Amino acid sequence: MAIDTGDTAFILICTALVMLMTPGVGLFYGGLVRRKNFISMIALAFIAFSVVTIQWVVFGYSLAFGSDIGGLIGSLEYVGLSGVGMDGEGIPDLLFMVFQLVFAGLTLAIVTSGVAERVKISSFIVFGLLWTTLVYDPLAHWAWGGGWAAQLGALDFAGGTVVHISSGFGALALALVIGKRVGFGTYGMEPHNIPMTLLGGALLWFGWFGFNAGSALAADGLAASAFVVTNISAAAGALAWLFAAWVRGKPSSVGMISGAIAGLVAITPAAGFVDPMSAIVIGAVAGVLCYAALLFRVGRGLDESLDAWAVHGVGGVWGALAMGVFAVAAIGGVDGLLYGNVGQFIIQVVDVVVVVIYAFGVTFILAKIVDLTMGLRVSEEEEYVGLDISQHGESTQV
Amino acid sequence: MAIDTGDTAFILICTALVMLMTPGVGLFYGGLVRRKNFISMIALAFIAFSVVTIQWVVFGYSLAFGSDIGGLIGSLEYVGLSGVGMDGEGIPDLLFMVFQLVFAGLTLAIVTSGVAERVKISSFIVFGLLWTTLVYDPLAHWAWGGGWAAQLGALDFAGGTVVHISSGFGALALALVIGKRVGFGTYGMEPHNIPMTLLGGALLWFGWFGFNAGSALAADGLAASAFVVTNISAAAGALAWLFAAWVRGKPSSVGMISGAIAGLVAITPAAGFVDPMSAIVIGAVAGVLCYAALLFRVGRGLDESLDAWAVHGVGGVWGALAMGVFAVAAIGGVDGLLYGNVGQFIIQVVDVVVVVIYAFGVTFILAKIVDLTMGLRVSEEEEYVGLDISQHGESTQV
Amino acid sequence: MAIDTGDTAFILICTALVMLMTPGVGLFYGGLVRRKNFISMIALAFIAFSVVTIQWVVFGYSLAFGSDIGGLIGSLEYVGLSGVGMDGEGIPDLLFMVFQLVFAGLTLAIVTSGVAERVKISSFIVFGLLWTTLVYDPLAHWAWGGGWAAQLGALDFAGGTVVHISSGFGALALALVIGKRVGFGTYGMEPHNIPMTLLGGALLWFGWFGFNAGSALAADGLAASAFVVTNISAAAGALAWLFAAWVRGKPSSVGMISGAIAGLVAITPAAGFVDPMSAIVIGAVAGVLCYAALLFRVGRGLDESLDAWAVHGVGGVWGALAMGVFAVAAIGGVDGLLYGNVGQFIIQVVDVVVVVIYAFGVTFILAKIVDLTMGLRVSEEEEYVGLDISQHGESTQV
Repeated sequence: MAIDTGDTAFILICTALVMLMTPGVGLFYGGLVRRKNFISMIALAFIAFSVVTIQWVVFGYSLAFGSDIGGLIGSLEYVGLSGVGMDGEGIPDLLFMVFQLVFAGLTLAIVTSGVAERVKISSFIVFGLLWTTLVYDPLAHWAWGGGWAAQLGALDFAGGTVVHISSGFGALALALVIGKRVGFGTYGMEPHNIPMTLLGGALLWFGWFGFNAGSALAADGLAASAFVVTNISAAAGALAWLFAAWVRGKPSSVGMISGAIAGLVAITPAAGFVDPMSAIVIGAVAGVLCYAALLFRVGRGLDESLDAWAVHGVGGVWGALAMGVFAVAAIGGVDGLLYGNVGQFIIQVVDVVVVVIYAFGVTFILAKIVDLTMGLRVSEEEEYVGLDISQHGESTQV
Repeated sequence: MAIDTGDTAFILICTALVMLMTPGVGLFYGGLVRRKNFISMIALAFIAFSVVTIQWVVFGYSLAFGSDIGGLIGSLEYVGLSGVGMDGEGIPDLLFMVFQLVFAGLTLAIVTSGVAERVKISSFIVFGLLWTTLVYDPLAHWAWGGGWAAQLGALDFAGGTVVHISSGFGALALALVIGKRVGFGTYGMEPHNIPMTLLGGALLWFGWFGFNAGSALAADGLAASAFVVTNISAAAGALAWLFAAWVRGKPSSVGMISGAIAGLVAITPAAGFVDPMSAIVIGAVAGVLCYAALLFRVGRGLDESLDAWAVHGVGGVWGALAMGVFAVAAIGGVDGLLYGNVGQFIIQVVDVVVVVIYAFGVTFILAKIVDLTMGLRVSEEEEYVGLDISQHGESTQV
Repeated sequence: MAIDTGDTAFILICTALVMLMTPGVGLFYGGLVRRKNFISMIALAFIAFSVVTIQWVVFGYSLAFGSDIGGLIGSLEYVGLSGVGMDGEGIPDLLFMVFQLVFAGLTLAIVTSGVAERVKISSFIVFGLLWTTLVYDPLAHWAWGGGWAAQLGALDFAGGTVVHISSGFGALALALVIGKRVGFGTYGMEPHNIPMTLLGGALLWFGWFGFNAGSALAADGLAASAFVVTNISAAAGALAWLFAAWVRGKPSSVGMISGAIAGLVAITPAAGFVDPMSAIVIGAVAGVLCYAALLFRVGRGLDESLDAWAVHGVGGVWGALAMGVFAVAAIGGVDGLLYGNVGQFIIQVVDVVVVVIYAFGVTFILAKIVDLTMGLRVSEEEEYVGLDISQHGESTQV
C-alpha cells in the first residue's frame, strides 16, 4: 500500500492541531492559577513538550512502537528513528511517529496540574524524562504497540488510558507526593485569568479534532464519525456541568469549559466505536461525573486543584468503560455491553484497573525518588514570591 | 462516487477551523465590552455553540437538509442523524452534517452582539434554541437544502444570507427588544481589551478560510479561488476601514479589524463566483459601507454596540448583492450584472429582501416572547455589577 | 499532471496556518513591548499583511514568479493575477500564489521588530510597500522564481534567505536608521505581557508546520520529514537557549520561546534536506548562537530589541549554512559538507553573503529615503504617550 496524499494531508494537519493543544493546556492551567505563577504554567507546558520531543525521537518512540518484548515494552530497533522513513502504508512512517510524538508531549503537559505553583523546573525536567519513559511509553506500547492490552483485545481509540488515565492519576500521585500549596484551604486561590482558561479550552477543543479524528489514521468515514462524536460529547459535557453547577449555585464558565474537556476526555477512547446519540450520553455523564469527582476532591482537601485527576483521570476511566458499553459494530467493528457483548466490557474493566494502578503507582514512586534526591518543590519563600519571579525571573504582575 | 480522501481531509480540517471561529467571536466581543462582562461574552459563545450542537444532531440538521417540504423546511427524516452515515459522495455524509453544524453554532454566537452585557443566561439558552430552529434552520434550508431560494436560483456560496444577514439583522432586532444598556450614551463604554479583540479577529480570519474555501466541499481549484478572494477581501476591507476612519481621526485597530471582518462577510456569499480583482472592490466597499453603517447606528443612538448589524448584516447584504454583480461564469458557472446577467442580480435582490425581513421579523417576535415570559434581561443591579459576577460568579477584575 | 486533492487539501490548510503566523508575530512582539504600545505591535502585523496582500496580487507575485529577467526579477506577465487560474500541476496555480502570499505578508510583519514603539503608521505603510517590492520580491525570485541563486544551485527549502535573513537584517537596518527609543539604556523596558508572547510563539510554532512542511508542495514523505525536523529543531532550540540562559542566571520563558523560534528559523532552509538527528544539532546550535547574538546586540547598545536580527537574521544565516553541511541526498536529493559535498556548502555561503548584503543595504537605503521624506518616526511626545494612544487613539492601560 502506497502513500495516500489525502490521508497524509489529514494526519499532517492533525499533528499540528494536537501540537497546539500543549500550549492550550498551558493557557488553560495558567488562567486557573494565581497571577504570580501564570508564566510558569505556560512555560512548563512548552518545556514538557520540548523534553518529550527529544526523548521520543531518540528512544521513546522505539520503546512504544518497537517490536513487542513480552507484551510489556517495545524493542530498541527504532532508536534515533533508525528505520523510520518517508515511506509507509497510507501515511509515511515518519508521520505516524510524529503524530504519536505530539500525544506524548501533551500528556506530560497535563501532568503539570499535580505540581502547579510549587515545582522546581530542574526537578520537573528530570521527573518528566523518567515519567515519559517509564509510564507513558509502556502504556502506549500496551495499547497501540502490540502490548498485552492490545493482545487482550482492549480498545483505546485515541488515548483514554494512554493519555488521560495516565496523566490524571499521575497528577494525583504527584500532588500527594509534593504536598499542598502553602495556605491551601486557608486563603482563597481563585483563578486569576479566566478568559485565558477559556482560550486554552478553545484550543483544546479545536486540537481535539486532530487528536480523535486523526486517530483513524485516514481521511475516511471513520474519521468523520470520530469527529462528530467528539464535538457532540464536548457540547454535552459543557452543558451537563453547566446545569449541574447551576443546581448548586451559579453556572460558572470554568465549570462549562471543564465539562467540555470532560466530554472530550470521555469520548477519546470511544471515538471510533460509538454513534452520535451515544455520544450525547457519554458526554453528559462525563460532565456530571467529573464535576462530582471535583467536589469529592475538594471535600477531601486534596490540592490537585487544576483537576487533571477529576477531569482526565475520572473522565478517562468513564470513557474507557463507556467504550465497552456503547460500542456498535457497524462503526468500529466491535459491539459493547448494550449490544450484548459482555466480553469487551470486561476487557475494558481489566485494562482500566491495570492502567490506573500502574500509572498511579509508578508515578508515585518516581515522584518520591525525585523528591528525595533533588527535591520536587521550591522553597516556601520562592512559593510565596511565585514561580514566575523565583524560577524564571519574569513577571506579569506589573 | 466514492469517498475522496483529499476532499475528506480538507473538509474535516475546515470544520475544525470553523469551530474555532466561535470562541473567536467570543474573544472578539469580549475585548470590546467592559471588563465586568468579559467572561460573559466568551461564555455565551461556547454556550451558543454547545446548545446548537445538540439541537443540530437531534433535529436541526433534518429541518435544514431533510427532503424539501413546500420550499420552506426540511422533513424529519434525519432526526437523531438517522440515515446520516460514514458513506457519501466525495465526503462522508456525517462530515457534511458536522461542517454545517459548525456554521449553525457560529451564527448564534454572532447574534449575542445584540444582547451584550445585559442578557440572562437561561433566557438566552431558550431564545437560542428557538432562534436556531425557527430562523437559522429555515434559512439554511432555503439556500442549501433545496428550499425556495435555491429553486429560484439564488446563490449563497458560504452563508451571506444564512449566516450573516440572519445574525446581523437578528442582533438588531434583539437589541431593540432588550433595550439599551444602563448608562448608554451617558457614560463611556470603551473596549477594555483590544488585544483580545484583535486575537479574536485573527482566529476569525484564520477560520474563515475553512468557512469559505471549505464551502467548495472539495479540495479543488474552486476552493483555491475561494480561499484567494477571501484573503483579498479581508485585506481590502481592513485597509478601507482604516483609511476611512483616518479621514475622520485616528486609524483605530478596532476599525481595521472590523474592516477585515466586513470584507470577510461580504465575500462570503460571492467567494465561489468572483475573481481576485473583483474581491478588492468587494472588500474595499464593504469596509467603507460597514463603517458608514456603524456611524449611522451610533447617530441613531442604537445600542447594538458590537455592531453585528453594521458588519454582518450590512456586509452580508452587500456581499449577496455583489455576488449578483461581479460573478463570472468561468469561476462558478454564473455571470453577474457586470457581465450582462441582469436576472441573477434581481434574484439576489429578492433573496436579500426576503431574508432581511424574515430574520429581523421572526427574531423580533421570538425575542418579545422570551422577554414577556422569562425576561431577556438581568436586573439593573446585576447589570451594574456586571454579568461575570452576577451570572457566573466569576471575575477578571482582580 | 492534474490537480491532486490530497496535495491541494494540504497546501490550502498550510496556507491558513501560515496566515495565522502573522498575528502570531504581532502577539509575540506585542507582549515584549511596553503596555502603551501593545495594540500598535499587533496592528502593525495586520497592516503589513493587508498591504502585502494587495501588493502581491496586483504585481508582487509577478515580480517574484514571472518569467525570469536576467536572473534578477520576474516579468509582469502575472500582473493582476492574469493567467493564474484554478488549474495547475498537483495544486491549483492560485493556491501556489496564495501560499507564497502569506509568506510575503509574514516577512514584513517580522520586520516591524526594527521600528517597534516608535514608527509612524503612514510611513510604515509606504516603507512596507517599497520593501516588499524591492527586497522581498527579488529575493523570492532569486531563490524560488528561477533567479540567479536558483540557477547557481543555492537551496532554500522554505525561506531561510527569503524570509528570515531578509527580515532579520532588514530589521537591523531599520533600527539603525530610526534610532534608539527615548530612554533606551536608561530606563527598564521589560516585556509587559509575557503570556501573550508565549501565545504568539505557540501560534508561530503551530503555523511553522504549514510553512515548512507545506513547502514540499505535496502531502508526501518529504512533507512528513520536513514536519518532523521542524518540530525537533524547535524543541532543541527551546531547550538549548533555556539551558544557556540558565548558566548565566534564571531560565526565562522568553528565552525558551525565543530559542524555539531560533530553532524554527534555522531549520527552515534545511527542512527538506536533513534528517532528524541533524535537526537536533541544528536547533540546539541555533538556540545558543541566537542567544549569543542577542547578548552581542545588547552589549553594543543596539536597540533592535525584539531581536528579529538575533533570531531571524542570525538564525537564518546559520540555517542556510547548516543546509549545506547536514543535507543528505536520501532525503532531498543533495548531499552537504558532512557527506563530502563541498560545492553545495560554498554555494550556500555565496547565497547567504549576497542576501545579507542586499537585504541590509537596500533596507537601509529605503528607510533613509522614507525617513528623509515622510519621517519614519513619531514625535518624542507621541513616543512618550505611546503609539496606542498617539497613533490609534486606543489603549489597554485602563
